[in-house]
Amino acid sequence: MRAYDIILKKRNGLELSSEEIQFLIDGYVKGTIPDYQMAAFCMAVFFRGLNPGETSVLTRAMADSGDRVDLSEIPGIKVDKHSTGGVGDKTTMIVVPLVACLGVPVAKMSGRGLGHTGGTVDKLESIPGFRTDLPIDEFIQTVKNAGAALIGQTGNLVPADKKIYALRDVTATVDSIPLIASSIMSKKIAAGCDALVLDVKVGSGAFMKNKEEARKLANLMLDIGRAMQIRTAAVLSSANQPLGKGIGNSLEVKEAVETLQGNGPGDLKELCIQLAAQMLLMGKGMKDQKNAVKQVTEALESGAALNKFREIIEAQGGNSAVVEDTTLLPNAELTLQVTSPREGYIQKFDTEKVGLAAACIGAGRSRKEDKIDPSAGIVMHKKIGDTVFRGEPLATLHFNSGAPCEQASDIILDAVQIGRERPASEPLIIDIIS
Amino acid sequence: MRAYDIILKKRNGLELSSEEIQFLIDGYVKGTIPDYQMAAFCMAVFFRGLNPGETSVLTRAMADSGDRVDLSEIPGIKVDKHSTGGVGDKTTMIVVPLVACLGVPVAKMSGRGLGHTGGTVDKLESIPGFRTDLPIDEFIQTVKNAGAALIGQTGNLVPADKKIYALRDVTATVDSIPLIASSIMSKKIAAGCDALVLDVKVGSGAFMKNKEEARKLANLMLDIGRAMQIRTAAVLSSANQPLGKGIGNSLEVKEAVETLQGNGPGDLKELCIQLAAQMLLMGKGMKDQKNAVKQVTEALESGAALNKFREIIEAQGGNSAVVEDTTLLPNAELTLQVTSPREGYIQKFDTEKVGLAAACIGAGRSRKEDKIDPSAGIVMHKKIGDTVFRGEPLATLHFNSGAPCEQASDIILDAVQIGRERPASEPLIIDIIS
Repeated sequence: MRAYDIILKKRNGLELSSEEIQFLIDGYVKGTIPDYQMAAFCMAVFFRGLNPGETSVLTRAMADSGDRVDLSEIPGIKVDKHSTGGVGDKTTMIVVPLVACLGVPVAKMSGRGLGHTGGTVDKLESIPGFRTDLPIDEFIQTVKNAGAALIGQTGNLVPADKKIYALRDVTATVDSIPLIASSIMSKKIAAGCDALVLDVKVGSGAFMKNKEEARKLANLMLDIGRAMQIRTAAVLSSANQPLGKGIGNSLEVKEAVETLQGNGPGDLKELCIQLAAQMLLMGKGMKDQKNAVKQVTEALESGAALNKFREIIEAQGGNSAVVEDTTLLPNAELTLQVTSPREGYIQKFDTEKVGLAAACIGAGRSRKEDKIDPSAGIVMHKKIGDTVFRGEPLATLHFNSGAPCEQASDIILDAVQIGRERPASEPLIIDIIS
Repeated sequence: MRAYDIILKKRNGLELSSEEIQFLIDGYVKGTIPDYQMAAFCMAVFFRGLNPGETSVLTRAMADSGDRVDLSEIPGIKVDKHSTGGVGDKTTMIVVPLVACLGVPVAKMSGRGLGHTGGTVDKLESIPGFRTDLPIDEFIQTVKNAGAALIGQTGNLVPADKKIYALRDVTATVDSIPLIASSIMSKKIAAGCDALVLDVKVGSGAFMKNKEEARKLANLMLDIGRAMQIRTAAVLSSANQPLGKGIGNSLEVKEAVETLQGNGPGDLKELCIQLAAQMLLMGKGMKDQKNAVKQVTEALESGAALNKFREIIEAQGGNSAVVEDTTLLPNAELTLQVTSPREGYIQKFDTEKVGLAAACIGAGRSRKEDKIDPSAGIVMHKKIGDTVFRGEPLATLHFNSGAPCEQASDIILDAVQIGRERPASEPLIIDIIS
């Protein structure tokens, strides 16, 4: 078998066999297939696609390229949750304690932020003392004891994805639906979950800019889930504006705590309840969606989820007092109001730009090696459809001296569109597919 | 400027600027743009194409990536000739002396054979003593003295093409019309010609399997020629069967000599006359195609072209007695008849397979490093439309002991289709575009 023939076959639009896909992934991980052949293959896949069968085989080959986490020691159905990446997306910190307090164990591995999107690991690390680098055995023990644990990616999980993703990133082959689906699903499979809820973002802040693409991605991941015998559901939600108000690590922890206290922004609460309900349905084998939503809402409003968050923070060595007093989180020295240049209605956001504005004052990274400032970020004061007066604050920047706050302010002004007409309202939850 | 953005732009089907194309080629030759980015770019071009303007800019950038041969010392219009590669294609050895004896100077650089196609340099080297490695100054001097010279590629000509072609060869991106056109034309431009006649082969033995593709390639090369102010014409000819009868290096020199003696196969003679007539039109600024064909035919029949071939061989250190006595060329020890398993009409050839059969007994190479056997090859006895009896020879293999002659015989039998109906006759010359 030769990589050349596999590239040619895909380039010509033919279906690859399981053996061919396995050969390609094995060879690439071992280094016998060079980067340039994999780059040509990825570009051919960009144009020709992979069918659900091919994508499932690719996903399995990638998941098998390194270690797999064995969660069998933890009793119950382990449900994982994955977001395709948004701006201001702090749902994991709310949803995980929420379902854990209802008895669904969650062994969650999360990523770090890159580009315009944040990462849960960075956010959690803004809690003083919080350890995101638990070894696997301690991770499993924590899930058993506390009902959930949240760590960064560890061990030699999915080396194929690490290598292929790095290559796609420099060859303009990231935005291929089957390659995105196999990348996400291979990591989730290697992380050892039994069931999975996907938060698929759509809109100006997401990788998927339109609903059709997002629906395709969601359905393909559901197909892979079926092929790998992992129950999977997807919630499609709008990323046409930042989720909630806070963007940036400690600002997002603060907002997660406020939400668990019952004081969160409406959109964030709504999405968290839907995601948690899906996780509960799977984790408990429930059929009644309404009942799941009811249980989740009660657990959020009763403070049970907040208590579970405290328990998790304690179990992972963090200062759990932050759940009563968020001023214990890192605070930025300085703030700057970004005020509206005119009156009108908020028409739309270029959400990706808002994310980049936050990154530029220290809340994110443009390269993997970059350091982040946990206290830096943005609080948004307006949502689409809100009225705004000239001079009224649109956003507050939180930053430390030396950060390019003027530049961030300009990016935000550029990212917000204000007009005379009230825009049509858009639902946050677009669809739930299961 | 970043290679990533250029790949993305082409992937998305947008037109590249001259600066972007130049940046890509410069960076790739210098090594600042890695193979994997160029591989992704080539695959994007395979799917999205390049328009004539982009292709001309690419061609110029490639031609400028190394040295250019300066032929200005040679008086007259220097006309080059290029074949897209066929099986049994010995036209260069006939056409070059033919136009040279009519006063058109030809400074010809040729390639070596690879895969199913032969190369003029290998063929000439089967003439005892013939030097194909003249230094550039001696090459130019030979053209001035003898009217023509034929050498291998020398110097640092078109390093961009060498590097890109090697990459395309292993990433399934060879058969992209703009990439083929820019590869051919950049080499011709760097070789310093003023005008160019292209022999574009179409059919089972050619890279272009159908007329539409071949016409596209020819027209694109004419566009590039116009952009680079090199007068260019293209002769589209059928490669649905081997050209002439001999395939293999000394067998092809023998057939070229026979053709220059007036005894060549009809199809070979016809193509040589058409190619030479186009070269004469350009080299002499003539308008009258009929007159050009007449002059060329006379030069072939009078022996003037044969004398010129003798002169060129002498000038390049070869034993010119081969033009009277072709037994002075390397002869294979053994022959084997490939006989017809049934009676009928020759319907068609898989010409590429016939070329591979010749390569397998030593006439060609499967890798660049392989040695060839100058005496090995095949003489074909039948053309499409010929009748054949059961047991009648279809071909004679010429080979030395140890060559896999049985295997070659099987390949030939597999490559020849014999049926009961006389096939419709097809013209050799499909079109002349100028």
